[in-house]
Amino acid sequence: MNVDQFLLDLVVVLFAAKAGGEIAHRLNQPAVLGELLGGMIFGASVLGVLASHVHFLQLLTIGPKSSSYPVLFICAQIGMILLLFEAGLETDMDELFKLGVSALWVACLGVVLSFVGGYFAMRLMHVSNAGALFVGAAISATSVGITARSFSDLDKSRSKEAKIVLGAAVADDIIGLIILAVMSGFAMNRMSAVGACKTAVAAVLFLVVAVVLGRYLAPKIMDLAHRMKTRSALATASLIFCFILAILANYAAGLSPIIGAFAAGLVLAKTSHKLHFIKQLQPVASVFIPVFFVLTGALMPVNAINPASAAGRTVILQTLLLFAVAAIAKVIAGVSVPERNTNRIAVGVGMIPRGEVVLIFAGYGIQSGALSQGLYTAVLLVVMLTTFVTPPLLKAVLGSSSNEKGGLLTSEAVQQTVPAA
Amino acid sequence: MNVDQFLLDLVVVLFAAKAGGEIAHRLNQPAVLGELLGGMIFGASVLGVLASHVHFLQLLTIGPKSSSYPVLFICAQIGMILLLFEAGLETDMDELFKLGVSALWVACLGVVLSFVGGYFAMRLMHVSNAGALFVGAAISATSVGITARSFSDLDKSRSKEAKIVLGAAVADDIIGLIILAVMSGFAMNRMSAVGACKTAVAAVLFLVVAVVLGRYLAPKIMDLAHRMKTRSALATASLIFCFILAILANYAAGLSPIIGAFAAGLVLAKTSHKLHFIKQLQPVASVFIPVFFVLTGALMPVNAINPASAAGRTVILQTLLLFAVAAIAKVIAGVSVPERNTNRIAVGVGMIPRGEVVLIFAGYGIQSGALSQGLYTAVLLVVMLTTFVTPPLLKAVLGSSSNEKGGLLTSEAVQQTVPAA
Repeated sequence: MNVDQFLLDLVVVLFAAKAGGEIAHRLNQPAVLGELLGGMIFGASVLGVLASHVHFLQLLTIGPKSSSYPVLFICAQIGMILLLFEAGLETDMDELFKLGVSALWVACLGVVLSFVGGYFAMRLMHVSNAGALFVGAAISATSVGITARSFSDLDKSRSKEAKIVLGAAVADDIIGLIILAVMSGFAMNRMSAVGACKTAVAAVLFLVVAVVLGRYLAPKIMDLAHRMKTRSALATASLIFCFILAILANYAAGLSPIIGAFAAGLVLAKTSHKLHFIKQLQPVASVFIPVFFVLTGALMPVNAINPASAAGRTVILQTLLLFAVAAIAKVIAGVSVPERNTNRIAVGVGMIPRGEVVLIFAGYGIQSGALSQGLYTAVLLVVMLTTFVTPPLLKAVLGSSSNEKGGLLTSEAVQQTVPAA
Repeated sequence: MNVDQFLLDLVVVLFAAKAGGEIAHRLNQPAVLGELLGGMIFGASVLGVLASHVHFLQLLTIGPKSSSYPVLFICAQIGMILLLFEAGLETDMDELFKLGVSALWVACLGVVLSFVGGYFAMRLMHVSNAGALFVGAAISATSVGITARSFSDLDKSRSKEAKIVLGAAVADDIIGLIILAVMSGFAMNRMSAVGACKTAVAAVLFLVVAVVLGRYLAPKIMDLAHRMKTRSALATASLIFCFILAILANYAAGLSPIIGAFAAGLVLAKTSHKLHFIKQLQPVASVFIPVFFVLTGALMPVNAINPASAAGRTVILQTLLLFAVAAIAKVIAGVSVPERNTNRIAVGVGMIPRGEVVLIFAGYGIQSGALSQGLYTAVLLVVMLTTFVTPPLLKAVLGSSSNEKGGLLTSEAVQQTVPAA
């Protein structure tokens, strides 16, 4: 792929994002829904080539094991990293910790209900024990991306609900890791409680060290960068900090890189340069973030459903059943949150999206033979459904103003406060 | 290459850029020199892997024929495109046209003197007729990137000297194309005056159509984008506009994509949203632009010189001779510019850098057998020398204030005028 081809793809993606976002806005929906739909429409027509040679799985699973990706996919990943970095920058760490018990409660109950619900739903449909276990594990953990984006679209990034959901989603990623350690042991016929513990300890340790050490070191590093005279030194330093934590999260702790980026945002939000970071990040982020959502839309396996065949109807039935379990489990977890003055349904709805973890489990499951091709498709379709329903549902339950600009300081807000030079 | 590996490389590149830029600033030199040196140091050590498997040639030559590049190289190319887009946004089109005769004069005289000088210098050193012709053609055209960056570093982007040099460099690219058409005909043993004319007409036609049509359409498109409610629609529209012109320059006219980006900047500078574009572009550009200069530094073929062997000494001699011809030819062209109240030496020095065109010719020359391996290395080393000497020389002859921030509205300037929210 040369730079011309890349620029052409990028132009199509950015156009799909803005056209879709604009239409969604006019229909009083979050922009992210428009980007997903824009991706689906352009994915089938203009970007058709992309969908054929790059697998949906590749988009969401990132790790040291993955092979070479097209450039656009790297951009999508960076978009996710910047999205969570932005979410971290807009989250007050102390408030997040105060809500920690609620977040943990939502995370644990949501995972348990999804796992158990998914397992029994599949057993009811005569899926093998191993297959049902994999499906249960796959749909257990919430993906933080869609929710963070929807809260941002609705200008609710700093609400109590957003903080509980973000905290719970981070916890979900750690719980997901532990389940993965157990399940991959299961897939290789050797359960390892020690391995699962090691994974969990590494993940928690990473977050604690990153936050404690970061909170001590970050102000010093950023003040140093602030004293530098070269162009954009401070903004670049914040990006370097974010990228290093993203890399460490993955390499050192096996966590998703976006969890590291969120931790970096949390830490930098405590420095005196927070507003500068948010402002400088915004234009970079608004180029990269839509790439992720448009590609997600473009790569949805919509053509995998064939209602004409018996197998196709089974996939559809499994998908709908799993989707119902996935949504209800998280809503129950959210509604039961032990927190006053909270829109609990919004917390539950915010926990609905599934993403990375599902796709990792689906990959493991199909490799180990526990998941059939049909079940695999059903699980991917659940990702798609949860992704599509969350933005409008969240908008409905939050009943907010239709401010789609998002973020603490939007470009337009900055624009208006700067006198024309 | 996965996203972790890419992020790691990006962190190294950004760190090298900012550390190098800062040291250059403290030594009262343009930041770009520090980025190039930072690239050389990190290129040899940390980024060593990159230099070994990616050829220096790949970095600067972009076109539909090129194969798949690592992601970092795409970033570098986008950096160049954004740099010229920024340069275009800061250039007043009408003033540029007023200086058109001077720019054309500098371009034509500089090309002729470089070509003739390079040819005879090589004939003196017993290079074959075909080889000498290729070397002359290779060193004829100025590369606009280094100069645009140096003027920006010195806060002289909007000076008369910068406009003459930018205009002349655009003309150089078109003249380079014509020479290339003739020379590639020569390399394939069929000279084609018709082909050369077609190339020239296509290039000029593209620029005229882009500017005339763009000046009519751009305000309408941008006002439409301005009325959109979705986040960063206007800034995204400007990027899409820039990318489309960059793609068209290459596909439709065979020009370097950066010429298209410059034309896009010129056109958008005439809309009412100019300041908004510059401000929104700045953070994106300051991530991508240093990637180009650090990689250029990292990929310099410094290890190709071996003074111990006779062949190595010949390469060194050829390099120094060609460098002298290349520098003197452009300085003479600059000094003879028919424009009053102009720092003519600065115009000449601004024209010294060679880049893309050299590398295209070097590639053709070595493929056709006209250039030996030694001459090929010498030509690449001339690119390196002209790149390194221009920033400090320009600084010396412009004798400017040490404002290294560059650009019309730097992040810090914006920062200061925005009240903390």
